[in-house]
Amino acid sequence: MMTMEKIVYRPARDELAYTFGGRMPVAHVRSGDILEVFTEDCFGGLVRGPADFPSQVCRMPYLNPVSGPFFVEDAEPGDTLAIHLASIVPARDWGVSSTFPHFGALTSTSHTATLQPPLEERVWVYDIDRQAGIVRFQATETDHTVDLPLEAMIGTIGVAPGGMQARPTIVPDTHGGNLDTPQLRAGTTLYLGVNVHGAMLALGDGHARQGEGEACGVGVEIATTTTLAIEVIKGEPTGWPRLETDNSIMSIGCARPLEDAYRIAHHDMVGWVGALTGLETLDAYQLVSQAGRAPIGNVCDPNYTVLAAVDKALLPAPASAYAGVHDRLRQLAVGLG
Amino acid sequence: MMTMEKIVYRPARDELAYTFGGRMPVAHVRSGDILEVFTEDCFGGLVRGPADFPSQVCRMPYLNPVSGPFFVEDAEPGDTLAIHLASIVPARDWGVSSTFPHFGALTSTSHTATLQPPLEERVWVYDIDRQAGIVRFQATETDHTVDLPLEAMIGTIGVAPGGMQARPTIVPDTHGGNLDTPQLRAGTTLYLGVNVHGAMLALGDGHARQGEGEACGVGVEIATTTTLAIEVIKGEPTGWPRLETDNSIMSIGCARPLEDAYRIAHHDMVGWVGALTGLETLDAYQLVSQAGRAPIGNVCDPNYTVLAAVDKALLPAPASAYAGVHDRLRQLAVGLG
Amino acid sequence: MMTMEKIVYRPARDELAYTFGGRMPVAHVRSGDILEVFTEDCFGGLVRGPADFPSQVCRMPYLNPVSGPFFVEDAEPGDTLAIHLASIVPARDWGVSSTFPHFGALTSTSHTATLQPPLEERVWVYDIDRQAGIVRFQATETDHTVDLPLEAMIGTIGVAPGGMQARPTIVPDTHGGNLDTPQLRAGTTLYLGVNVHGAMLALGDGHARQGEGEACGVGVEIATTTTLAIEVIKGEPTGWPRLETDNSIMSIGCARPLEDAYRIAHHDMVGWVGALTGLETLDAYQLVSQAGRAPIGNVCDPNYTVLAAVDKALLPAPASAYAGVHDRLRQLAVGLG
Amino acid sequence: MMTMEKIVYRPARDELAYTFGGRMPVAHVRSGDILEVFTEDCFGGLVRGPADFPSQVCRMPYLNPVSGPFFVEDAEPGDTLAIHLASIVPARDWGVSSTFPHFGALTSTSHTATLQPPLEERVWVYDIDRQAGIVRFQATETDHTVDLPLEAMIGTIGVAPGGMQARPTIVPDTHGGNLDTPQLRAGTTLYLGVNVHGAMLALGDGHARQGEGEACGVGVEIATTTTLAIEVIKGEPTGWPRLETDNSIMSIGCARPLEDAYRIAHHDMVGWVGALTGLETLDAYQLVSQAGRAPIGNVCDPNYTVLAAVDKALLPAPASAYAGVHDRLRQLAVGLG
Repeated sequence: MMTMEKIVYRPARDELAYTFGGRMPVAHVRSGDILEVFTEDCFGGLVRGPADFPSQVCRMPYLNPVSGPFFVEDAEPGDTLAIHLASIVPARDWGVSSTFPHFGALTSTSHTATLQPPLEERVWVYDIDRQAGIVRFQATETDHTVDLPLEAMIGTIGVAPGGMQARPTIVPDTHGGNLDTPQLRAGTTLYLGVNVHGAMLALGDGHARQGEGEACGVGVEIATTTTLAIEVIKGEPTGWPRLETDNSIMSIGCARPLEDAYRIAHHDMVGWVGALTGLETLDAYQLVSQAGRAPIGNVCDPNYTVLAAVDKALLPAPASAYAGVHDRLRQLAVGLG
Repeated sequence: MMTMEKIVYRPARDELAYTFGGRMPVAHVRSGDILEVFTEDCFGGLVRGPADFPSQVCRMPYLNPVSGPFFVEDAEPGDTLAIHLASIVPARDWGVSSTFPHFGALTSTSHTATLQPPLEERVWVYDIDRQAGIVRFQATETDHTVDLPLEAMIGTIGVAPGGMQARPTIVPDTHGGNLDTPQLRAGTTLYLGVNVHGAMLALGDGHARQGEGEACGVGVEIATTTTLAIEVIKGEPTGWPRLETDNSIMSIGCARPLEDAYRIAHHDMVGWVGALTGLETLDAYQLVSQAGRAPIGNVCDPNYTVLAAVDKALLPAPASAYAGVHDRLRQLAVGLG
Repeated sequence: MMTMEKIVYRPARDELAYTFGGRMPVAHVRSGDILEVFTEDCFGGLVRGPADFPSQVCRMPYLNPVSGPFFVEDAEPGDTLAIHLASIVPARDWGVSSTFPHFGALTSTSHTATLQPPLEERVWVYDIDRQAGIVRFQATETDHTVDLPLEAMIGTIGVAPGGMQARPTIVPDTHGGNLDTPQLRAGTTLYLGVNVHGAMLALGDGHARQGEGEACGVGVEIATTTTLAIEVIKGEPTGWPRLETDNSIMSIGCARPLEDAYRIAHHDMVGWVGALTGLETLDAYQLVSQAGRAPIGNVCDPNYTVLAAVDKALLPAPASAYAGVHDRLRQLAVGLG
Repeated sequence: MMTMEKIVYRPARDELAYTFGGRMPVAHVRSGDILEVFTEDCFGGLVRGPADFPSQVCRMPYLNPVSGPFFVEDAEPGDTLAIHLASIVPARDWGVSSTFPHFGALTSTSHTATLQPPLEERVWVYDIDRQAGIVRFQATETDHTVDLPLEAMIGTIGVAPGGMQARPTIVPDTHGGNLDTPQLRAGTTLYLGVNVHGAMLALGDGHARQGEGEACGVGVEIATTTTLAIEVIKGEPTGWPRLETDNSIMSIGCARPLEDAYRIAHHDMVGWVGALTGLETLDAYQLVSQAGRAPIGNVCDPNYTVLAAVDKALLPAPASAYAGVHDRLRQLAVGLG
């Protein structure tokens, strides 16, 4: 039985981090601990109304702050860090979204560079009703409103990358980072390969919800109180980020163009399915081809994200992934409730 | 009230078509008619067991045959053809899948050309139990089996393209074609812009099911008996293929790289949402960004496909798409049952 | 010795073709013949001044007309058609270029779809001085002029594609088409695989010059009188378009994204170098990697084009490509001068 | 007149750097100084013969070492660092190239992930004759040899990126880095925007030559003695890397897919031409479209590189770029000879 401790962390403003890697830890945690973290929104809380244009109130590179990093004792390169998202609670009763000059899927960007002027910058403020589980969209030019389901998620979560790198928090890659997938919701366990001594876990960029692809480049951005249960899986490396829920396993590919993100995720999933079930590689490829889902995460960040997902019920008698850590942490998390 | 006729068509082998465009019609139908069509599988029924390698038993370009084209009376360029998929019934109690040299998402291809030898070509035969609604995967190298849900769909359906073109049936584009999305199931209405007098509708390439992206390049390929209800919507053009179900509307983008398919679909959806609801463009962009789903169709065909989908329940009081034709054809189809 | 005939062809306006494939021949030619063809510019000659906006004076799909197709006797599927460009003479003393709504490399397009309005549509008229070999750029908003070298080329040249296809002339692919590379100049021999009985050669879309990539989507568009020498190489197939000059050999890849065009061209070149020199595959890959050039053709058409080029002087004692047909036709062409 | 100093730097093995950013300077230099730097090859000098497989003798992330960083006094964010390549001399009489598992343009990779086994890993050793200016290719499977021109270049050169980042030296981006273009030869001036106090210049990864695109992923890798002249241009920022030679100006785009690298480079060039000549934006776009070249750098690194190049002779009376620094440093470099 694990002796578990609950660490509560609320960053001071000048403690917020803007890179994965290149930072000293803000706290130490141990495998089996529960971590309750306050996370700021992607704008550092500075966009609060229609007149707060992100390009004016935010200053590069101080975007997309994360809380952390947390030094995880006993985590070494070659291990895997399992991070179970126990709960993600919006910290305020509002969220914001916006367009942002030359950022997003339906605009030219710094990289898909065109000679056209940028789209108009505009801010949308959403009311959030935590009790009712509702996020209210209000149109800016007409009177329309729509109540959307509150489906809180963490946009950015990762560890320090290897090779002495420090990456902006806006980038998703093998180390996690700005994965921006709605699958990072409460009840999900995230697996990340450990690249440096102590792993150096950090997270932020909560969304009250986002569509698949995050088309306009910005979700319904919120500050959160997020509770995690973590465990170090010794001696088992993980190449690309993976997810597990009660019902499914998922691999995440991060790349441009988008088909490479698809390829990475599905290549990883074919190997994972083979390892869990004993299926030979082409048999696993065939099964994933017919049984898999491929939810898109983001089509706006420096790397796009695509997931390969397979329901456990469609796998032939799979072994437990990572020695059953998801079920273990899930139980632990339920016990917190 | 429409006077409806039921046309039954079963192609002789030499009537199968391999292009959209460039063909004479096999039958004439009218707006409001019901069409029951036998469709061959993508291998022309020639792959029946593990020794029937597609690259040997099939001869290019005689792949992916479609039944048709059907001349739709009164359909003119500038109109939209609504095609409701009333039912898709597997015609045999088996389906096949395979790898195919240099085709698929996790292999080098004719276009993503590498110096590596192709993956091994292999055939999988699936038993289909229509009563139980099950498609049985059987591994080739081990004894594993898995029962997957039967989720029959039409892979290829389209009209003649404009500009005097004739396109291989393997290609998806504005005219439809090899869209290869699981969303083309019974209960769905497909909208295609009419490019030539008579529209020239054709379909084939049924799948007992496929995963999102059709990773290995081949679904669980089946012959089908497919029943359609069609209606011509006069004077309303449609740029890219669109879908409607009881619960949602969807736009389909067809392109490489995959992000362009995403962009096309979402650009079309933003315009469609704006037209149906009265939302201004950036408001529609914002709503689609938070409420939308983006199911991937295929990541193997000459053009990849991505859909933009929005639940009707998340739209503010939308007008009926295409003057309510989906509900009308849905009712008609239910009446057939 | 070949008995050579010179065929002169000047299309009437309603003889212009807008597809490769799906057309009846306008004339018959034989291997060894000389063909002198008048070609219209990509706008059909309708854009003659700053007020002639292409989107207004041209009507889709009547863009990019070609002259032909010419039925080449004795050309059969599996053969290669060698087409030597003996001379390309501007037919008028002016050329035009333009921006075009949502077309070009530095704008959003129909496929790289964004919500931004299109760039302004504008026409540039160039004076052409054939004697001096000069194309004069004149700015529209200021008084600047620049004399650029006249480097006449053919943008679009191809044969009928296989598989009963008819493709718009705007598309480059295995059959040739809108290759849009400055390498298609006088002195170059183009090799195209024959897909249908008679090959069905056609050409058009001359440019007085263009930059690599044709960034704005439009070259300095001209009508031309183009003289070709053709020869059928029996029993030797060609997969992707290839070029030969006195000094180099080149393979052309046509695809999206641009790296696939690069891959196709270089994969083909590695094989070609191996076949000509006897180098083993990885040795040929290594040599091409260090000795090769990779000129970009277009980054605006439905498929982008990249070439792989290697100087003959950097190949170890190569056999003559296609049994020396380039030298033979070159001599023939010089004899015409 | 500048008082110039010559700094000579030869790194000890444990001084080699593997990131841009995140490092302390190895020396301080001033605007106007001459810097003579020994650079190791991309394998750290460990691959010396056919049995030295890079994947075995090198250990990640210790690949692609650079010498530096050099702290440039007076260089501040918002300035531009001009680096003139005075000479690049191979330090040994041999160079090496190789294939490398899942790296290169004609193989599946970690990101273009497929289920195929990697290409065979193989090493090629080249003799270099500095006097004759020759690099000798020797085939491994046959007796063929070819003498290629020695065209020494620097593959990797850059400054520290902004935003507290540390990037692996293998990555090209706005800060320079692994640009891998043959244009980085003696006689060229490179302009890089300064992101941090002191700029933190570093370089390495010499090539005796490489083809455009570096198809196999590896040039003819050499150690070098490279001489640079540097100057800080105060108060003039530079977004993407730019080059100037006696005859032309060039912008470098770094991105995936390759068309985005093309777009970035050409977008930057249109702006640069406009600024130098006074041409309005669309006029500059038009001129670049007809006069420009687009040499490909690499199609194998984490970001691909494409250049936009325009001959000065084809620009209408341009102002000197960066106040004539190229001519000044060029003179200085000639004086060193």
